[in-house]
This record gives sequence, C-alpha cells and structure tokens, in this order.
Amino acid sequence: MIAVFFMKRDTQTIEKQENSVGLVETKYYTFAEPPDRLKLISGKELGPITLAYETYGTLNKDRSNAILILHALSGSAHAAGCHSPQDRHPGWWDNYIGPGKAFDTKRYFVICSNVIGGCSGSTGPSSINPETGKPYALDFPVITIQDMVNAQYHLIKHLGIDCLLAVTGGSMGGMQALAWSISYPQMVKSVIAIATSALLSAQGIAFNEVGRQAIINDPNWKSGNYYGSWPPDSGLSLARMIGHITYLSEKHMHMKFGRRFQNPEFNSADFRTEFMVESYLHYQGVKFVTRFDANSYLYITKAIDFFDLETEYGGSLMKAFEKVRSNFLIISFTSDWLYPSAMSKDIVRALRRNGKNVIYTDIETDLGHDAFLIENPVLERNISNFLKSEFEKIGLP
Amino acid sequence: MIAVFFMKRDTQTIEKQENSVGLVETKYYTFAEPPDRLKLISGKELGPITLAYETYGTLNKDRSNAILILHALSGSAHAAGCHSPQDRHPGWWDNYIGPGKAFDTKRYFVICSNVIGGCSGSTGPSSINPETGKPYALDFPVITIQDMVNAQYHLIKHLGIDCLLAVTGGSMGGMQALAWSISYPQMVKSVIAIATSALLSAQGIAFNEVGRQAIINDPNWKSGNYYGSWPPDSGLSLARMIGHITYLSEKHMHMKFGRRFQNPEFNSADFRTEFMVESYLHYQGVKFVTRFDANSYLYITKAIDFFDLETEYGGSLMKAFEKVRSNFLIISFTSDWLYPSAMSKDIVRALRRNGKNVIYTDIETDLGHDAFLIENPVLERNISNFLKSEFEKIGLP
Repeated sequence: MIAVFFMKRDTQTIEKQENSVGLVETKYYTFAEPPDRLKLISGKELGPITLAYETYGTLNKDRSNAILILHALSGSAHAAGCHSPQDRHPGWWDNYIGPGKAFDTKRYFVICSNVIGGCSGSTGPSSINPETGKPYALDFPVITIQDMVNAQYHLIKHLGIDCLLAVTGGSMGGMQALAWSISYPQMVKSVIAIATSALLSAQGIAFNEVGRQAIINDPNWKSGNYYGSWPPDSGLSLARMIGHITYLSEKHMHMKFGRRFQNPEFNSADFRTEFMVESYLHYQGVKFVTRFDANSYLYITKAIDFFDLETEYGGSLMKAFEKVRSNFLIISFTSDWLYPSAMSKDIVRALRRNGKNVIYTDIETDLGHDAFLIENPVLERNISNFLKSEFEKIGLP
Repeated sequence: MIAVFFMKRDTQTIEKQENSVGLVETKYYTFAEPPDRLKLISGKELGPITLAYETYGTLNKDRSNAILILHALSGSAHAAGCHSPQDRHPGWWDNYIGPGKAFDTKRYFVICSNVIGGCSGSTGPSSINPETGKPYALDFPVITIQDMVNAQYHLIKHLGIDCLLAVTGGSMGGMQALAWSISYPQMVKSVIAIATSALLSAQGIAFNEVGRQAIINDPNWKSGNYYGSWPPDSGLSLARMIGHITYLSEKHMHMKFGRRFQNPEFNSADFRTEFMVESYLHYQGVKFVTRFDANSYLYITKAIDFFDLETEYGGSLMKAFEKVRSNFLIISFTSDWLYPSAMSKDIVRALRRNGKNVIYTDIETDLGHDAFLIENPVLERNISNFLKSEFEKIGLP
C-alpha cells in the first residue's frame, strides 16, 4: 500500500508540477558521418561512438539558446524530468532544470550529454568492441576529460548548434565545461563551473585510488572480464561508499546522522549494531551497483585524476585560459572539502589575469561537495541571473 | 651494499645517540592472580589475558614517577628504542621518549601498554581460545576502550604502582587516557590527551566502516576464520590505505606528493601510470599487513566507534568528567580533520565547567592527525613543561 501511495504521489508530481519538464526520453547519437571514429588524446582511435543525451525545451530559430549540461562521475544524460509516470526519481539536476527554474526550459534549449567511458548508453568499457564482438572490458582505451568533450563536440554539431549559450556542470561536469571553453572557444558563450577544479588534488587522487582498489580487489572483477558473469558488486559498492564520505561535509554528516543507531534496539557494542551513517553508506553502495559499471568507474576516475589544465599548459593555469572567449560564473561551496573553494579561486585568478569576465561566488553551506545537486535558492539565483544577463547580451528577450 | 650501510647507520643511531633508550624488549604480563579473567563491559568474560608492554627508565623508590603511554589503532607496546641492533625502525614514539626528551627517561618510569583485542602480543582475536584450542577469530568478544583500560589497570597494579604521574596517548591512545582518568580517578595524577576526542564523529565512524568493509569483502577473510590459511591481505591493505588518507591533511599531501608521478617515464593517461600519492598508499598498505591482524583491525575500530563518553554519562560530557582528579593537558592540531580541534575544545569546556585544571594547546601544523607521531618542538615543549610542573607538584626534584 505504501508503495502504491508513493508511486501515485510521484506520478502526480511529474505530471502536474508546473515547473517540471515532465516525461522525457534518452536519445542516442551514433557518429555516422565521417569521422565516425574519434582520435583520442592517447593517440588511439575509438569507434563507432554513441553518446546518450537528453534535451529539454526548444531550440530557437537562430539556434542561440542552447545550454550544454555535463554530469559528474556517477551521473548520466538523464538530468531532468522522468522516464515514465512510474518513475520515482526525476533526473539528477531536476531541481535546476525546468520551466521557470535556473535552466529555464521556457527560454533555453537544454542538452545533457553523457560521457564516453560511461555506462549509461554511451560507448564505454561495457560496450561491444567491434573487433572482437565482445565487451571491450580493459581493451577499452584510456580516455581523458578532453576526449569526453571532443566526443560531445560531434553531438553538438549534429544537433545543428554552432554556439552554446552556456556550458555547465558540477564536479567532473565542471572540468568538462572548463575544457570546452578552452578547446572550442568560439562555440562557448559562457561557462558555469560549479564545485570543480582545474586539476585534481593529491587527496582527490588518493580517494579515487582506494575506490579503484576496492573494485580491483573484488575477485568477481576478473581483470575486468566479468561481463556475462557476476559483476564485482561488493567492490563497486565499497568504492561508492568511500566516495559518498567525500561528498558530504563532516558537519552535514554529523547533523544528518550523528552517532544515532539504525535500529535503536541494537545499541550495544557488538558487530550487529549499526550506526545510521553506516547504514546510509551501505544503502548508497547497494543502490549504485544496480546502475553503474565497475570498469566505467575505473576509467572515469582515471580521467578525473589525469585532468590537469596547469600541467597541460606548461605549468601555467593563466596560459590554459589565454584563448577562452567565454564569460564565466564560478561557484564553490564553503564546506566542500573534495573540491575546496581555494581551487575555484585558482581558476578565477587565472581567468582574471587574462582579463576575462568572471563572477565568483563561494556559497555558504554545510552540505559539502554534493551541495550542487541539492535545492539551494542562492545557487538557483546565481545561475538564473547569470544566464539572463548572457541571454540579454546576445540581444534575446 | 645499501642495506648494509643502512643497518650500520641505524645501529650507530641507537647505540650512540645520547637521548635514545637504546635496546629494549617487549615484556608480557599474563593475569595470574585472581581475577585471572576480565569481566567485559558487554557482560562477557575474557581470560586468560596477556598484555604486552615495554618500560623505559627506572621506577623511583616511592613509585611516583610512572607514566603510562597508550597507543593508537595500529600501534603496539613498542614505543621507544630498538629491539635489536639490526632493527631499522625505533618504537612509534621514539621522538618523545628517551633521556632528555619530553618523556624524559632520566626522570620518569615510562610504561607503554598494548591493548586487548590487538595482535602485538596481547590477547586478541588471533590468540588461542582456551575453550577450543584454536584462534578465537570472531568468537573473540567485542571489546571497548573501557575494557582495554580495565585490562591495563591490572598491569599497573602488577607493576606495583598505585598512582600514575601521567597517562597519555594520541588518537585512540588519548581516548584510553580520558577513560583512565574517569574510571580510576585516584590513580591518575595527570592526563595528556593528544589529537583525540570524547566520542568519534559520524565521519570517523564512516571511515572505519569502509575500512572494515574492505576486509570483510576480501574472500580470504572467510568470516574471520583465516588463521592457518592466507590472510585477507588485500582487504587489510586497502583498509590501511583508506586510513592513511585521513591521517594526513590535504595540504600536507599536496606538499608531500602533489600531482607528481612515481616514475616520470610513465606520465601518460593510462592504467600503468601511478601518481606518487598512489604509490605511497600502496606501500603503506603492503607494509601494514606484515605486522597487523585483520580481525584485530575490525575489533579495534569497533571499539573506537563505540567510544562515546557523552552518551555513557547521560548525554553530558560535563557529567562524564565530574569525578576526575587529574590535571589535564589537551593538545590538538590545526590541520587534523579526523579528530578536529573542535572536539578537543569540547573536552576542555567540559573539564573547565567542572573546575578542573586544564591547559589546552591547538598546535599550528599542516601535518594533520599524524602530527602527534612526528617530531615537533612545540609538542615536545608542551609535554615536557607540563610533566615537569606535575613532577614538582608532588615534591620531586
């Protein structure tokens, strides 16, 4: 009975809410026209390539109102709305995408693109390798954030868009947005980079590595060749648990769980007793393995580790941003310790030294890194105002 | 040749250094006189019990110069000096124990006691269960910080000491020191609690849980029954890697490793390439499994998780410290995010509200939680001055 109630309520939410994009579907673009293969940064080639994406709103006549949204490590193309009336969970950025929301679908044509290397409809290690007829597994070439962006370029061109009003994302999505502005300066009017960095910290690499190690240690991983057999669920689940600790702030974790027990009857010092925070992490881990591929986790975290605009441009972040043409909105969160505010400030400094237009906001919150996913009127207002001003700059009402 | 050189150099270090305690040996005390069994907080009984310990310096005639040192999660009774001239690594707190050092062995009789539940000579899950003739494994009863302290009480009595000049430790050692002052107020003249807390944070529990999960996920763990077969090394190693991330500050990790590669020749985005920070964590993990037991890791982290003086005393930390008689030196480190300074301040506040004598120092350092193990003149001076003043209070020269 409870399940039915929830289903009903959620259906109502999506169908009736005025600021929802409603029912949506994921689309797939397979590079058809040459080049149907992508030359990767490593020098290797990958193809054929499919990218999963979703769109919300309508592209205007002069194709000037398109916004590209890019997701974080565990995200997908499904950023807003629901896939069916039964769908209990709307897309990952539904708080910010919809009629009247920050990414106002009455004004903008919003595209969310998945990444290559992923497992949510785009070509990745679980895709079939045309040379063998079997999943790539570890034969999938190592990919970088730049490779993800270069693949998205083809999707944007395919959609008939020559210039994006904005490219945006949080965390790894922010890294892609920065890479977009550098690689395709003429195509990016503005960038909204949230809770991100121009390079991953040593601590960030360390956390990614222990997550990968959890997967590799799982005997079901079988050097990546687990497709068709039981996948390394416990390893991937543990990787996700580790990740989730870093997505919350210590203070938020304290307020959310404290030292409360999951089952107040089990409150003695033994191995059965579970604190709420343990139960939460286990739940996050178990939920994750139903929708994510362990090899994708390895490839994508490696791409994040190797992202380093500073080193790529001869040790100078200023040089990295020399040729960008975009206006920037950089947003960090005071309690984000995975991508601390100082890292956003480094980006802001490098941009300003280049004379670029930058608005920077450090949003006060206890929610940690995950703050960019959660409803927040300050974040909403910042994005909304920035986009309106960009929209007006190009002479649109 | 290099190995010989190192051996020679280290031998010289120990034999010649004037402020070293030199060669030491671990001693073992098995509760002989009744009670030869320990009633645990859980209500269960454990016995026979052996505690490993070391001593440095000489007990004075009126037995008033004894200091009890308690170790952290992965520590042992071997706190100072070397076990043999070939020993390359002195005890874990050798920086602070020795003639003329903070714990001056010319003045004080220093005892370092191991904990029950451990695997370094004291009764723990890898010990033989007298009822089965086999290692306890998970039949070992769950133990608490209080149980560790209650076992140490018998050791101190056995050594003929009625009153300790000081009880001290960092991290879990600090928890034990606090518990000592509360449980045996008449036996503890003073407490030096470093980088510790009166209860573990939700984030601390979370990190311990992912470490435990890494062990439990290892198929070699076999529900704890791995004695006599290959132990769950990869799980324990991963648990240690996760732990090590939390022992360093983000800044220290950045300064120590940054984004440098382990092998500069492998610097391309692939799975072979390793960042220095990854290599460091792997090394720490691999080193740890040679000296630690996975089941002990489970039991000891659970003991840490369950430590909560506030809840134990009806939700009031002030009430917890009501009956203590000790003077306190509480020390935290500004960059310690596992046991943040705020947690030390909570202890200080509760003690002061009880009118107790407390000196509190928040030491400025980038070294994170592990700062208490590393040479630091400010820490040295704080301990040294505090102890001298305690020593003078009882009328000793």
